[in-house]
Amino acid sequence: MSKLVRFGVSLEEDLLTQFDRLIKQRKYTNRSEALRDMIREELVKKEWTENKEVTGAITLVYDHHTRELVTKVLDVQHDYHSCILSSQHIHMDHRNCFEIIVTRGKAKEIEELFQKLKSIKSVKHAGFMMATQGKHIP
Amino acid sequence: MSKLVRFGVSLEEDLLTQFDRLIKQRKYTNRSEALRDMIREELVKKEWTENKEVTGAITLVYDHHTRELVTKVLDVQHDYHSCILSSQHIHMDHRNCFEIIVTRGKAKEIEELFQKLKSIKSVKHAGFMMATQGKHIP
Amino acid sequence: MSKLVRFGVSLEEDLLTQFDRLIKQRKYTNRSEALRDMIREELVKKEWTENKEVTGAITLVYDHHTRELVTKVLDVQHDYHSCILSSQHIHMDHRNCFEIIVTRGKAKEIEELFQKLKSIKSVKHAGFMMATQGKHIP
Amino acid sequence: MSKLVRFGVSLEEDLLTQFDRLIKQRKYTNRSEALRDMIREELVKKEWTENKEVTGAITLVYDHHTRELVTKVLDVQHDYHSCILSSQHIHMDHRNCFEIIVTRGKAKEIEELFQKLKSIKSVKHAGFMMATQGKHIP
Repeated sequence: MSKLVRFGVSLEEDLLTQFDRLIKQRKYTNRSEALRDMIREELVKKEWTENKEVTGAITLVYDHHTRELVTKVLDVQHDYHSCILSSQHIHMDHRNCFEIIVTRGKAKEIEELFQKLKSIKSVKHAGFMMATQGKHIP
Repeated sequence: MSKLVRFGVSLEEDLLTQFDRLIKQRKYTNRSEALRDMIREELVKKEWTENKEVTGAITLVYDHHTRELVTKVLDVQHDYHSCILSSQHIHMDHRNCFEIIVTRGKAKEIEELFQKLKSIKSVKHAGFMMATQGKHIP
Repeated sequence: MSKLVRFGVSLEEDLLTQFDRLIKQRKYTNRSEALRDMIREELVKKEWTENKEVTGAITLVYDHHTRELVTKVLDVQHDYHSCILSSQHIHMDHRNCFEIIVTRGKAKEIEELFQKLKSIKSVKHAGFMMATQGKHIP
Repeated sequence: MSKLVRFGVSLEEDLLTQFDRLIKQRKYTNRSEALRDMIREELVKKEWTENKEVTGAITLVYDHHTRELVTKVLDVQHDYHSCILSSQHIHMDHRNCFEIIVTRGKAKEIEELFQKLKSIKSVKHAGFMMATQGKHIP
């Protein structure tokens, strides 16, 4: 972890009061941590728009009773095995499955994998979360 | 305008370097202004989720040749005249109009007006921008 | 306006029931119009990611008492005059101004103009709305 | 799975051409499936805004070398154990961990859990994905 540095920020008094109220609501214990989070959020977005090596998660909700659906979901994953780190399956109820796929690779490739999974007939919901490998985010 | 106050923020050195690069790209001249903007952005979002008195803008793109469309767009606006501050019309080309409506009122009412305009047949695009009256944002 | 064509869609009965409930809530009078809106929304997003010629609106909220702020806001607009169609100013209260700038040009250039305006010190809020010229959106 | 029903949609010819191009790009094999996905997406959003029983995923990226961080992440999870279905941990590199938590519960409670985890000092990134249990999404 890199060295901590300190710098001064000047803010209108009223803005600071409102900021303090906001971060309390969001459970932050101090201003620096809240600001760090805002900054890191922006850096992660940038990794994605610049097609860097990133980490992301894809969630799928589907009915495993649908004919051949499970096979198709697996087939697509195998085509992209090089950017899939893990795949976890949760049985939500008698019919519904929740699957979560952790991916690592170029931003564009992961987005492509997401589109392929989302477009499979009878996948009820496909979610996509941009995260980071953390390597370049201090 | 309220008094300026100054406080210290501590950050990992690497995070600060990346932050400085980011704000330079975004044309900020100093860190305080970039942080102020991030904070104000969050405060404006809060005004909307808490159904405060807000300001917003609605844009419409439509073909004024479509029968009765202009009348319908006007009718809806009149139903909500109490939360419309101004309405401006730009002739984009022979067929297409761009209309921009500045609104002030309760967040929920403005969102309702937006839905009504958006759902009019042949409105090609309806955009919605959450802004602020500025009164409570220092 | 182009010729209307008709095609069939097949949907699970339950999904259709929920869709009908949803569009009623959103004030649509028929399914075709709701679907048209969803499709057009996606097409407009595509115009922006592909850096096409687009239309957009930028809103600014600022305190005109702040020294030299008005001049700076005007200066930036002049640098980008070729992609500004109009600029409208509303006096919100004694201090706060709401300015709305309608732009037309390459997506990237408009985003740059937005960043420049947003980063001006003492601009309290800058909003950005992606719209369309309408020319290529039927 | 519920019975399939069929209904007609009318669209401008040009809009249909562009829609077909769009869904081909997004890997859909037919129009019905693309429309079904758009509709389901809206229904899932509605479950969240109406504070229904939902499923979601939270991702965390953090450096496990940071003192007491792992303990804090675990503590918060235990406070919310009733809405956590599973938690999976991936070792990204020597320092960075990627953790993915699958949650089920009231929308508001899950959002609260997310805020608590995100605000822990030294969590580098926290992502949040709204999904669905699937039970009410056909």
